[in-house]
Amino acid sequence: MKPPRDPRSHRPSKPQEGRPRLEMPRPQQGARDQRPAPRPAQHSGASEAPRGTVWLYGVHAVAAALANPARRLRRLMLTEEAEAGLAARLPQPWALAPERTDRARLDRLLGAAVVHQGVALLADPLAPPPLQQAMERPGPVLVLDQVGDPRNVGAILRSAAAFGIAAVIVQDRNAPEETGALAKAASGALETVPMLRAVNIARTLVALRAAGCWVVGLDAGGAPLSGPALAGRRVALVLGSEGEGLRRLTRDTCDEVAGIAMPGGTNRLDSLNVSAAAAVALYELART
Amino acid sequence: MKPPRDPRSHRPSKPQEGRPRLEMPRPQQGARDQRPAPRPAQHSGASEAPRGTVWLYGVHAVAAALANPARRLRRLMLTEEAEAGLAARLPQPWALAPERTDRARLDRLLGAAVVHQGVALLADPLAPPPLQQAMERPGPVLVLDQVGDPRNVGAILRSAAAFGIAAVIVQDRNAPEETGALAKAASGALETVPMLRAVNIARTLVALRAAGCWVVGLDAGGAPLSGPALAGRRVALVLGSEGEGLRRLTRDTCDEVAGIAMPGGTNRLDSLNVSAAAAVALYELART
Repeated sequence: MKPPRDPRSHRPSKPQEGRPRLEMPRPQQGARDQRPAPRPAQHSGASEAPRGTVWLYGVHAVAAALANPARRLRRLMLTEEAEAGLAARLPQPWALAPERTDRARLDRLLGAAVVHQGVALLADPLAPPPLQQAMERPGPVLVLDQVGDPRNVGAILRSAAAFGIAAVIVQDRNAPEETGALAKAASGALETVPMLRAVNIARTLVALRAAGCWVVGLDAGGAPLSGPALAGRRVALVLGSEGEGLRRLTRDTCDEVAGIAMPGGTNRLDSLNVSAAAAVALYELART
Repeated sequence: MKPPRDPRSHRPSKPQEGRPRLEMPRPQQGARDQRPAPRPAQHSGASEAPRGTVWLYGVHAVAAALANPARRLRRLMLTEEAEAGLAARLPQPWALAPERTDRARLDRLLGAAVVHQGVALLADPLAPPPLQQAMERPGPVLVLDQVGDPRNVGAILRSAAAFGIAAVIVQDRNAPEETGALAKAASGALETVPMLRAVNIARTLVALRAAGCWVVGLDAGGAPLSGPALAGRRVALVLGSEGEGLRRLTRDTCDEVAGIAMPGGTNRLDSLNVSAAAAVALYELART
């Protein structure tokens, strides 16, 4: 499943224009929109990407982006060894002619610590669809209140794709931008699961409830999450930050709070990595 | 639950002596034992640790190591701001007097990309217990055939602690050493879940079967994994590498192969990050 093609992604000179929000922008939003470029990914060296673009890397992430008609593509760089691997994943011809390069050049471009697998694609970030459009996809909705690590967000997107999630909504100020590190961890899922940014999560939850969702906060306390007990409802699942859990206002806006069943009757979420907790919760929701 | 105190960990000058194995070492083992120091962690700068020691960092990982009587501790370095956070996690007095330092010094010591939270502990790696001793702990056994990323292995150890796993067995040559990055991702679980290294995974699985385990390989194909269907059996769960899955010989040595139930009836493990797949599988095994 792919998000519908969005013509906004073809206006590279104004990547923030018309950026869809779930609610009216706050005053600080204007200032934020003037930021010159996406935040660099951890260890990615992505700061070398021209303004308003991002370097994606890794065979899975790049193959998925090449196959996504909603992506504005700019440059594809490949080592000789990597070309066969990419072609095995996505048969040629590709939407963009590759430039031959070598590992050393990619290391310099992306940073030596980046596992680029000999494949790099310069592209524009995706323009997320409006909430209403994303909600036309089937499945639960996942809300990440303050998950900041790009690798965790990427891994969560990947699990969201595997378990048939309609959309992932992140808290704008505390979520990572779309970066190569996030896209690599998502392993292609960034192209197939819409990731929307919300300024105010509590108001977003109110909007989701108004749209018919049953909002479940994942946190310690409360009964263990049970997919079968929620059958027949469309669930919006909310995860907080790894250290702090759900914020008070977020928690108070949920219809219910549920934990993850663990041996000994505990449901302490903080004993799991946030992307592990997300995977387990999405798995449980898929049980019917 | 903590592994029993192991006197071997108090012989820092010969960290490899008597290192327990599940089977006889292979010829290359002798050469390997002469390596000068643990492999440096990704982005960790751990190469600055003296031979046979490792820098652990992060509040959770260091607090757990300080509380582990089986750990040989060498130096504890703390920023002023971090001391209160560590004390909140582990009341003083600690087993080692802290040295006051500043962030810049820790950045230089560990690498600027490392999220050390102002806390660093120089310690000896843990000496794993023999298999028989680890098996006296309750719970399933988890076997990682070729999981190489230290952050994935650390996150899997953390899930293993949460879901009551007796021991995690890794394939020696393709698993990361105990490093700061692994310990940070494990968030303290490295101190509580024994991590054993096996030279030959297929022979290890034969030994586990002989010890009464039902060996389940997690892979695409086969029915979805079901905890209730395995009730009453002690399970050894085997995960392969993220890209390749289970190796042929590993797969053939399993009593059964099972996947993870996903919407639409798929059970394609490769659509999940390996630590997400491990968390889901351990959660399912804990269901009764």
